[in-house]
Formats: sequence, C-alpha cells, structure tokens
Amino acid sequence: MFSILVRDADTSARRGVLETLHGSIETPCFLPVGTRGAVKGVEFDRLEEWDCRAILANAYHLMARPGLEVIRRAGDLHAFLGWARSILTDSGGFQVMSLATRRKISEEGVEFRSPEDGSRHFLSPELAMELQSVFGVDIAMVLDVCPPYPAERAEVESACRLSLDWARRSRQAYSGPGMLFGIVQGGIHEDLRRESAQALLDLDFAGYAIGGVAVGEPKEAIRSITWHTSPLLPEQKARYLMGVGTPADLLESVRAGVDLFDCVLPTRNGRMGHAYTREGEVTIKHERFKEDLSPLDPACGCPVCRRHTRAYIRHLFVVKDFSAPMLLSLHNVFFYLDWMRQIREAITEGRLASLEAPPEGKIEESR
Amino acid sequence: MFSILVRDADTSARRGVLETLHGSIETPCFLPVGTRGAVKGVEFDRLEEWDCRAILANAYHLMARPGLEVIRRAGDLHAFLGWARSILTDSGGFQVMSLATRRKISEEGVEFRSPEDGSRHFLSPELAMELQSVFGVDIAMVLDVCPPYPAERAEVESACRLSLDWARRSRQAYSGPGMLFGIVQGGIHEDLRRESAQALLDLDFAGYAIGGVAVGEPKEAIRSITWHTSPLLPEQKARYLMGVGTPADLLESVRAGVDLFDCVLPTRNGRMGHAYTREGEVTIKHERFKEDLSPLDPACGCPVCRRHTRAYIRHLFVVKDFSAPMLLSLHNVFFYLDWMRQIREAITEGRLASLEAPPEGKIEESR
Repeated sequence: MFSILVRDADTSARRGVLETLHGSIETPCFLPVGTRGAVKGVEFDRLEEWDCRAILANAYHLMARPGLEVIRRAGDLHAFLGWARSILTDSGGFQVMSLATRRKISEEGVEFRSPEDGSRHFLSPELAMELQSVFGVDIAMVLDVCPPYPAERAEVESACRLSLDWARRSRQAYSGPGMLFGIVQGGIHEDLRRESAQALLDLDFAGYAIGGVAVGEPKEAIRSITWHTSPLLPEQKARYLMGVGTPADLLESVRAGVDLFDCVLPTRNGRMGHAYTREGEVTIKHERFKEDLSPLDPACGCPVCRRHTRAYIRHLFVVKDFSAPMLLSLHNVFFYLDWMRQIREAITEGRLASLEAPPEGKIEESR
Repeated sequence: MFSILVRDADTSARRGVLETLHGSIETPCFLPVGTRGAVKGVEFDRLEEWDCRAILANAYHLMARPGLEVIRRAGDLHAFLGWARSILTDSGGFQVMSLATRRKISEEGVEFRSPEDGSRHFLSPELAMELQSVFGVDIAMVLDVCPPYPAERAEVESACRLSLDWARRSRQAYSGPGMLFGIVQGGIHEDLRRESAQALLDLDFAGYAIGGVAVGEPKEAIRSITWHTSPLLPEQKARYLMGVGTPADLLESVRAGVDLFDCVLPTRNGRMGHAYTREGEVTIKHERFKEDLSPLDPACGCPVCRRHTRAYIRHLFVVKDFSAPMLLSLHNVFFYLDWMRQIREAITEGRLASLEAPPEGKIEESR
C-alpha cells in the first residue's frame, strides 16, 4: 500500500505514494485538520483545487457530536462530510489527555466527562475501532494513552504498557475497510520509545505513528524524539508524526524519514491573525502592515495573495470582519500544502539537504 | 448609462443594463453587502465565478477605518479591496441615523461619536463626496438625513428639507469618476415622497434611490412606499431601493420598477444560522435537520448544496465550527444572485407576473 519512489541520498527522507481506498496520497504529505469534520474557514472545493488528497478528523469529537448513528445513516464519514478523498481519523487518545482533570483511565478504557455539557462518556479500544470502522476511513488510529509533558517516568511507563495492550485490542477489533496505524509512545525517553516501537512492530500494523509529541515539551525534544524514533520503524511502511508543526518542523521531520503530518497551526493561527510566509510569520494586526500594499507572501500563488494586500487583510482583522480569519486560514492551508509540494520536488531533484525552511521569527520584529 | 432592454407587459418591471466604469451591471440586480470592504464569509473569487457584477461598501465605515489616506495610497477603493468590478458606496446617512443618541445634526453636517472608540467625527456632504470621489466608485450616493420609524411628521419634513439641501451640495461637490445618485426621503408620507422626488429630479442625478425604508416600519409600508415612489422617478434612469429585503420583497419591488438592491440579510442571516431556500427559510440548528441528508435547497446549484447535507451543516453549526456561518453565507449569497437571475429571465420571457417567490415562513415550522 505504501511505495517509496525516491530515497534522498543526503538525509533519511523519502518520497512515496500511499494508496488508500479513496485515492493515492503523495508523500511527504500534510493533512489539513478537520477535527469536527470541517477544515475551519476553507471550503473543500479549495482543498480539491489545491490537490489536497487527505484530511484529518477526530473520531472522539465526532462520537460526541453528531454521534455515530448520524454518520452511519449517511453511509460513512466521507458521505457525511461530502469529502470523497482520503480521511485519517485520530482515535481520541490525545483529546482524552487534554481532559486530564475529568477523566479516569482503567485497563478497560477511559471514562470522561464532556467539557461541553458535562455528560459522561466511555471510550475503549473496541469502541474507538467500531467508530472508525463505521466511519469507513482510509487510515484509522489505535486508541492510545498519551501522557502529558512533563510527566514522571513511571507515568510514561504505565502509559506505554496500557497503550500496548490497547494497541493489541485495537488490532483485533478493527473491522473497517481502511488501514490501521499503531502509535509509538514513550515520552522523551529513548529506551521507552524503542520498546514501544518494537512491541508494535510485532503486531504488524499497516503504518506507524509517532505519538505523544507536541504535548508541551520544547521544540528540540520533539525533533530529537523524531530523529530517534523514525529509524525504529519499518522502512517500507508509512510514518506519521502526529500534531507537528511549523513549516521548519515539517522539513526537519521529513529529513528524519517522516511521511505524514497533521497540525492545527495553519487554521488556528489563521483565525488568530497569523500568516505563514517565506520570510517568516506575519502578525497581521501589527501597525507596520497598515499601508503595506504587498500580498501576505509575494511569492505565494494562493487566491488570497493573488488578490489582496496586507493592508486590506489587516483592516478586516482590525474591524473584526468575519472574512479576515477566513482569508488568513485559506492562505495558511495553501502555504502548508505548497510547502510540502516543494519538499517533494526537492527530494525528487536531490536538493532536500539544501532546501531552506521559512524562518520561524516574526517579520514585524525583524530589522 | 442605463438602457432598458425589456419592459414587462404586466407589471412596471424592466430588464436593463447599467454601464459603469468597471463593467456593465445587468438589472434588476442584487449587490452583496461588503460594508467594511469584504462580503463576510464569501471570497471575491466566488462572487466573480457567480457573475456578480457589483458590490456595496460603506463610505462612512471606511472613513472611520482604515481611513481615507490608506485607500488613497492604494490608488482607489477597487485597488484597496482587490475588486475590479463595480462598487456602489452608501454615504453613511443610514449609519448616522442608527447612532441617534450620539449624533448632532446641523445645517452644516452631522457630528457624531464613534461607537467603537468614542472618537468624534464630522460628516458633511462635501466630505462624503470627497471620500467617494477618492474611492473612485462607480456609483456614489448623496449624503442624506434618514429619519427613523416611527417619527413625527415634522421630523420627517425637516429631514427632507435638510436632505434636499445636502443633495444640492453633494451634487456640486462630487468630483469622482462615477455616477452620483440622489436619495428620495419622506418616510411613509406620500406627499413628502412626491416633493422629495420632484426636487431631486430638478437636480438631475445619474440615478435615484428610494431611501429611508427598512428602518423599522412594517413590511407592508415598505412595499406601499416603493409602489408609490418608483413611478415618481424618471423612467430612463436606474432606480435603487436601499437595504431591502427578502427574496419576496425583491420580486415585489422589481414589479414596482426597481432595478438595484442591497441587503445584509443573506450574509447576516447566514452567520446566524438561517438559509434561504425555494421552500422557505431553514433554521439550521433545528432538531428536525439532525439526520436530514438533503442539501439546504435541493434545487440549488451552489457549491455548498452540490456537496453538503443539512445534517452536516447543522452539526457544524451546533458545535460552533467556524465553517458553519461561512457555508451558510456562501449559499445565501448565491441564492440571492441566482434569484435575481431568475427574475431577469422571467422578465425576458414575459412571465414575471406569474413568478412565485419563495415563501417567507420557516420550513421547520411547516406541517
């Protein structure tokens, strides 16, 4: 299902194709995040136009609302969303972690209260697999226990043991038409990461994710975990780094051999008024852009940059116009998809090692 | 500049073309509202794709923010917005009315405080004309005094007198490249409407608007004023009914001989969760739509109806996803533009009298 087309000579990067039920995904690939079934502020028509092959949704959130039955009646998640290309669903392990004060983890599964209405829910590996099987997604994820950062080593060890047990149960319970990926845990501990990866390999998943990152640890720790964990995974299967990161993080992780990414940054930062550009981040409300008649990114070919200036978008953001977060989200998602296209081309052309990522600083603070 | 192509035999409707500096507008025409320079939630690319020829913006709001200088430096309002088709700007008379407690009207102009930051501003006919001249809009509006409803007859008479004086001064001061329209006032008083229209005709404007409607009076009053005022205006010039209304209101007003419309309903109602359909209004959060797998309007060809179900959009609205108001706004604006296209076709084909407007009731309350 996963084929490597080109191996980079200078790094661990590879260019490949992941064949799914709903089309092929060219890797390395960024999946825009549609947690609740929509990529906030970006029409699916635009995603298709930009050759986006896959999006991410969240099984836990969709179980809470609209609920399994509504999606079952639509046929599957593709039909419910109106998205006929590939879908990857996260199982909800990460979300359960973020509800730390309202959850209770047992061998059986996790009991938690909805932050929205206080209602009680129970999520087990079997239920997470039923959800994703009914959803008919292309890539399903095992239910895992995702320890926060910082955490005691004992807590991470315990999360690893339980995650492994749940991975076994997930593997057994999944009856969907798609691929099931295992998730390596282990926090910042190299030995735990190694043990987790080895045990998951024995279960023979269709692909493997590096989970439990981007939970509050320093950026250097994420990179070091990625460089450590990626080579522990089978060369011939797709590798997915969950929830990471900036354009520079993506490039660095591709060099470490990662194939798939998802991240809320382009949409969330778009709504908050931040734009990604080749020169760095633009905080659009900054006074500096008040009369700036250049596009968000002069080298960008997105519909926002083809038409609008920084001054215009800043104005809309300052007056809190509904279109401002929409335009910034559009640009950012395009920017991420386009950045991955550049990375794929650089691999093919043998110049990935010299490819320069956009600087991580803010343009308005430069010079 | 305005040519009538087809006169309806059964009503006062006419199909025409208004030639502007930035292209021709086929009438009757609905102008989506972009008060602060964006049609909230709808990309300009979509408007162009849907053959939208003109939008409305508000000179008063754009004077407050981003200010005249920013727009002047961009070149004109078209350049600032990134919209190369026609623009009509309202002068701000209506907005000044809505600030009733914070304004002071004199012969010279109106002094008011910004509701946003309390800053003092002064708007005179001369300044309103300078703004719209610099903006380079295709259709500029005189500065008028718009009495609220209900109002004493004496107050309406006084507003008419001052509006006429300001119309004269506007006529003299306007130095822009576009057309300047006069605005008939007179509230619900037929004799005052007649006097206002007659006096404005003597000033020979490029077109005429029926103003001071949709300020709180009953729907029947709006229709009766429109039927009374429209024939007082020159047959050979474009007629513009300001701020009206529902799809049924538009049809009724076209039959009374109106050519141009603007209204916030499609975008504002979209953000509030209401969709217009051929069967009536849909309040999307209603429980009734929870498992409704039909599009918002099965007969609609918009990108939202081509792809998404009511159940999906309801889900997004219930979870307060940013995309929900966007999708509803997209549909509603398309619906309005498409409705006007149907009206134009009906005129051409001689069947306007029998064209049926969508019912004004809510679908979820029917049967």
